[in-house]
Amino acid sequence: MTDTTLSYTDLTARVSQIFQRAGLAAAQSDAVARTIAAGERDACKSHGIYRIDGCLRSMQAGMVTLDAVPELLPEDGAIIRVAANGGFANAAFELGAPELAARAKSLGLAAMVINDCTHFAALWPEIEALTAQGLAAMAMCPSYSSVAPAGGTEALMGTNPFAFGWPRVGSDPYVFDFATSVAARGEIELHRRAGTPLPEGWAVDASGAPTTDPVAALDGAMLPFGGHKGSAIATMIELLAGAMIGDLTSREAMDRLGNTTLLPGHGELILAFDPARFAAGRPGDPMARAEGLFAAILGQGARLPSQRRFAARKTAMAEGITLSAEEMTRLDRLLADGMDAVE
Amino acid sequence: MTDTTLSYTDLTARVSQIFQRAGLAAAQSDAVARTIAAGERDACKSHGIYRIDGCLRSMQAGMVTLDAVPELLPEDGAIIRVAANGGFANAAFELGAPELAARAKSLGLAAMVINDCTHFAALWPEIEALTAQGLAAMAMCPSYSSVAPAGGTEALMGTNPFAFGWPRVGSDPYVFDFATSVAARGEIELHRRAGTPLPEGWAVDASGAPTTDPVAALDGAMLPFGGHKGSAIATMIELLAGAMIGDLTSREAMDRLGNTTLLPGHGELILAFDPARFAAGRPGDPMARAEGLFAAILGQGARLPSQRRFAARKTAMAEGITLSAEEMTRLDRLLADGMDAVE
Repeated sequence: MTDTTLSYTDLTARVSQIFQRAGLAAAQSDAVARTIAAGERDACKSHGIYRIDGCLRSMQAGMVTLDAVPELLPEDGAIIRVAANGGFANAAFELGAPELAARAKSLGLAAMVINDCTHFAALWPEIEALTAQGLAAMAMCPSYSSVAPAGGTEALMGTNPFAFGWPRVGSDPYVFDFATSVAARGEIELHRRAGTPLPEGWAVDASGAPTTDPVAALDGAMLPFGGHKGSAIATMIELLAGAMIGDLTSREAMDRLGNTTLLPGHGELILAFDPARFAAGRPGDPMARAEGLFAAILGQGARLPSQRRFAARKTAMAEGITLSAEEMTRLDRLLADGMDAVE
Repeated sequence: MTDTTLSYTDLTARVSQIFQRAGLAAAQSDAVARTIAAGERDACKSHGIYRIDGCLRSMQAGMVTLDAVPELLPEDGAIIRVAANGGFANAAFELGAPELAARAKSLGLAAMVINDCTHFAALWPEIEALTAQGLAAMAMCPSYSSVAPAGGTEALMGTNPFAFGWPRVGSDPYVFDFATSVAARGEIELHRRAGTPLPEGWAVDASGAPTTDPVAALDGAMLPFGGHKGSAIATMIELLAGAMIGDLTSREAMDRLGNTTLLPGHGELILAFDPARFAAGRPGDPMARAEGLFAAILGQGARLPSQRRFAARKTAMAEGITLSAEEMTRLDRLLADGMDAVE
C-alpha cells in the first residue's frame, strides 16, 4: 500500500465528481470541492476530505438543496446580500465576493451577508479571496449549539469561528481563523476516536460539571476560549451573524438539525475594508507599516498565524498533495457508491 | 471624615472645572469630564476620577493640544473621519457620532475613524452612544506597547481594548469592553499599589520569563488573553485601528511617549451596523430574537457583561455618586492647585 500524490486541480476534480455523482449540482460541487481540496493542500486535515462524509450525510438527510442556485440580491448601500437558497455557503460566497470587493473599494467598507446556507468549511478560503484583492477582511458565523457561555452549564452557542485577514504585498497574507470555543469540535472528535482524554478546561458534561472525557464532552458542552472574553465574542457572533442578518442562531440551527451528525444551516457575515481608502491623506503606507509590525512579532521568536498552513501549501503546490492508500480507497469508494458509502 | 454624595451632573461639572483650570478648552473638558464621571457612576473606578492625574500629567508634558478643536472631514463613502487635532478622543467622538449613526442608517454599515487623539477612556461610553441610536457597534484602538505577542518575550502590542454593543428595547444594551491582555494595565497597577502578587499567566519580566511580581511585570510585558487567539485579536487591532487608519501602532505610540506615565496618542476605529437594514426582508425581528439569546444565557445562571455596571448606574442615578473624604479632598486640591497638584 503506497501513498498517492495528486495535484490540487486533480484532487478538486475528484472531490467534485464525488459530489456530482451524489446528486449535487455542478456549480455547488465545484465550489465545495475547491474548499475541501484547499484544506488538504494546506495540511489542514480537519477541513479536508474528512468532511466529505458529513456533507453527503447532510445532503442525504435533505438538509441541502442539491440544485440550489445562489442569487445576488439587489444592492443595498454597503450591504451585499447573497441568498444561498439552501445550498452550500461556498458557491454563494464565490458569487458575492467580487461584488463585496467592488463595494468595499467604492465605499471603503462593505459587508456581505450570506443567508440560508449550509456551512462546513473553514473561513480562511473566504478571507484569502478578499486579501488577494488588497482588502482586509473579517468573517464570522454561528454553528450549532455546542458551547456553554462562560459561567453557564449548557450548550447554547456554536463553536462560532472568527477570522481576519490583512493583505501583504509579495507574501502570503496575515490570516487567522479560529473557533471561539477553547478547541474546535473536530479536535474533541479526534480525541474521541483516539480514546485520549481532553485537556482540562475544554468542556463540561451534561450536568454542567467539568470533564476530560471526550464522549461526555460531546454529550455536554464545550467551553469558550479565554473565559468571559471569548464567551462575549461568541455571543457577538450569534448577534451579528445570526439575529442581525435574519438567520439562525446556533441554538436555532441545532433545533432544526436535531442531531450533531449533520451540518448546520445558517448565515454568515463577512466585512471587507479597503486600507488604501482608510489611510488616504494620512502619513505612511499602511502596507509598509503593517510589515513593521509583522517583523517585530517574528523578530522576538513569535509566529504569525497560518504560517504552517502556508508552508504546507507551498510544498503541495510544488510537489502535489499526498494521500494515504486508505484515503484514496475511501475516495474511490465514495465515487463508486455515492450516498451508500456514507458512514 | 464622612463620604460625600454628588449627582452625576455635579461630578461632571466639578471634573470639567479641574480640567479648565488646568488650561484645557471647555469643549474638551466637558467631554472628558462626562466620561470620567460616567466611570464613577458605573462603579468602574479604574476609569473614574483616578484618571484625572494621568490626563493632567499628559497635558503638562505637552502631549495634548489644550485648545484642540475636533474637525469632521469631508464625507467619504462609508467612512466618517474626525481629526482630533491632538485633543482627547472624547470630544472627537461626540462630534462624529451623529454622522456615524446617520451614515450607518443610510448604508447599513459605516465606520468612524478618529485620528491624532489622546485616548484614556473605556470604550463603552462610545458603544452606548451608538446602541442608544438602535445600532450595533464595535470599537477598538491600540494603546502603547505593554503586551507581548503569544510565543514572544517583549512588549509590542498595547492592551488594545475591543468593545461591542447591541441595542435592547426597554433595557440596558448588551455591551462588552475588554482589554485583549489577560488583565488591564490598571489591574496590575492596583496590585503594585497593594503590594500583592499577580495571578500566574498575566505577565513576563524584562527577560521574557513568567513573573507574578507586578513591578517586574510593569518593566516586562503583559500577556494576551486566550493565548494565540487573543494575541491574534490584539494584532488585528494594531492593523485595523493603527496601520489601516494611518495612525500610530502601540509601539509607535510608546516611542512617541517615551514612558508609561503619560497617555498614548493614536487613533480609534468604530463600526456601526443597522440591524433593521441587515434584517430587512428576512423572517423574524432581530431585536426579539436577540432577547431569546439573552434569556437563554441568563436562564442557565450565566451573566451578561456590564450587568454590574448597569446596576451601579441605576443606584447612582437614584441616590447619587458617593466619594470618600479622601477622594473629595483630592478633587478640591486638583481644582485649587491644578497642574501643581499632579502626582
